[in-house]
Amino acid sequence: MKKHNFSAGPSILPQEVLDKAAQAVLNYNNSGLSILEISHRSKDFVAIMEEARTLALELLGLEGKGYQALFLSGGASMEFVRVPYSLLKQNGKAAYLDTGTWAAGAIKQAEKFGETIVVASSKSDNYSYIPKEYSIPTDASYFHCTSNNTIFGTQMQDFPETDVPIVCDMSSDIFSREIDFSKFGIIYAGAQKNMGPAGTTLVVVKEELLGKTDRVTPDILDYSAHIAKDSMYNTPPVFAVYASMLTLQWVKANGGVAAMEKKNNEKAALLYNEIERNLLFKGVAKLEDRSKMNVTFILVNEAHKEQFDKMWKAANISGLNGHRSVGGYRASIYNAMSIESVQVLVDVMQEFEKTIQ
Amino acid sequence: MKKHNFSAGPSILPQEVLDKAAQAVLNYNNSGLSILEISHRSKDFVAIMEEARTLALELLGLEGKGYQALFLSGGASMEFVRVPYSLLKQNGKAAYLDTGTWAAGAIKQAEKFGETIVVASSKSDNYSYIPKEYSIPTDASYFHCTSNNTIFGTQMQDFPETDVPIVCDMSSDIFSREIDFSKFGIIYAGAQKNMGPAGTTLVVVKEELLGKTDRVTPDILDYSAHIAKDSMYNTPPVFAVYASMLTLQWVKANGGVAAMEKKNNEKAALLYNEIERNLLFKGVAKLEDRSKMNVTFILVNEAHKEQFDKMWKAANISGLNGHRSVGGYRASIYNAMSIESVQVLVDVMQEFEKTIQ
Repeated sequence: MKKHNFSAGPSILPQEVLDKAAQAVLNYNNSGLSILEISHRSKDFVAIMEEARTLALELLGLEGKGYQALFLSGGASMEFVRVPYSLLKQNGKAAYLDTGTWAAGAIKQAEKFGETIVVASSKSDNYSYIPKEYSIPTDASYFHCTSNNTIFGTQMQDFPETDVPIVCDMSSDIFSREIDFSKFGIIYAGAQKNMGPAGTTLVVVKEELLGKTDRVTPDILDYSAHIAKDSMYNTPPVFAVYASMLTLQWVKANGGVAAMEKKNNEKAALLYNEIERNLLFKGVAKLEDRSKMNVTFILVNEAHKEQFDKMWKAANISGLNGHRSVGGYRASIYNAMSIESVQVLVDVMQEFEKTIQ
Repeated sequence: MKKHNFSAGPSILPQEVLDKAAQAVLNYNNSGLSILEISHRSKDFVAIMEEARTLALELLGLEGKGYQALFLSGGASMEFVRVPYSLLKQNGKAAYLDTGTWAAGAIKQAEKFGETIVVASSKSDNYSYIPKEYSIPTDASYFHCTSNNTIFGTQMQDFPETDVPIVCDMSSDIFSREIDFSKFGIIYAGAQKNMGPAGTTLVVVKEELLGKTDRVTPDILDYSAHIAKDSMYNTPPVFAVYASMLTLQWVKANGGVAAMEKKNNEKAALLYNEIERNLLFKGVAKLEDRSKMNVTFILVNEAHKEQFDKMWKAANISGLNGHRSVGGYRASIYNAMSIESVQVLVDVMQEFEKTIQ
């Protein structure tokens, strides 16, 4: 029986994506070949890559605006390195907003390249909120932020107005809500939350920003080299790109990002309302910064843990444990999660309330 | 109907690997979850990663000899960068053997890090042979070579005796033949030939060689960082690692590397004998350097091309076209290729001979 999968990532994907991907592993498009054993230079795969790139720009409203979409390998952690290689000028400085574990990880790597200014941090409050009062040095090569903090359950609701190019790690909320994406210079997102399986990273780059650092950059770490080869500088992660394309097709067929946002708002409201109503639970993140992707909450009384855990597991729910640095619970309710599955969790919380009283 | 897949890569995988991988995409191990949507920190995936790493060392005969096996992202091209970051001392020099397109690619990246000496090259003969007379500077940080040249169909039959650590790109012949693998300091191999789908790279590192360059190295480009986290420094390409593990299980269950080599020798002999016997064809690579993985050959008379192409396509063969830099044909006969499929190709070549005469 299919689980209600609240895992933070790799995470739930639409069932029709799983069905099509499994079929392609056996026989892609009736070709007599598996998707795992076709050349990346084959007509079939070139078409997949092109459709994935086009869909990504289309869904973000960035077609014809000077952006390129790339599907690369290595995960967001690789972009922590490609970003300074591509944008941080020799003897220049980079500005970072520290909103969580992954933001801090990006900062640590940037520091290996040059002066890295942390404009604000919520670390001392265990990243329970998004800092809002900060200024970005006008001479920074770029400003880097993380739109959604998977571990802590916070999400940026606004982005700063600045002339400095904004680089944003959107790994855990890409395609989940409407934003004016043309505000960003570079957007990157590991696939394994809202887009596909682990193994590829979407990078959306405003082309005019590149080629200005005077750094000696290895080709594979240089966005320009990937753009020049239509995201085929080397053998791409074929299957992960294919599954991501299927998910992007699914997003489009289901109304695009606007429709995803509407559904995500409903799911988040359902769950946050229960957390507020139910006296046995407490939210972790500051109200105004709460994430609509990762809902973090704790038991008011830890003594009830065994009972609650038993109940949600019995309801066929998986992946609900919080990250060790926060504790408690984390319900990740990405695009592919149905409101029915969220309702199952809410029902368990209410059932649990009855057994305790 | 299943094709006879002679593609150079991504390439043929054992049918049972495809069957198990497709099943796992629907429901992994009866967990009610797809392999694409389970956490990389789950017990299930940690066990997969550990089995893949252990099997790799076991099949290479490197268990307990100071080596670590890693499954990373990015393809061999990423290792072109990780290798100098990890081994090339500041102000040191690296030695490279230039035997083909990929060897040349590795050299181009190393040059961005420091002095790079090309000890020998067969470029002027379109890489049709492996240079043998060369000396490796004793003060080089490492010596890099490519064991099998997929495009040109050549393969190193011997490796130099030297005190300099040997780094070898074995992307297209790993697990295909017995070698004393303990001669190497680092072995790396993109999965998409003999090991799995595109999307992961096996790296086998002799641990004592690391940490000696005095370079400021981004963590994700530093083998030590990956070793410290048991190949989970960041989210690994879960599905590609799983499919690679399945293939390694298949290699072991079918007699290990020794049995693969025996079968590969038979397949290569069958095909090369036909190329030599059949006056309509000619081999491309120098006899003594011929690859047992990628068999390159041309038509003596190009005018017959249309006829021959028609015949092999009718026989349900795919992926036989040579690389554009060599032309003609290339039959890639990796571990998963059966001798029956090679026989189908040989039959077509003999049938073709009859239609021409």
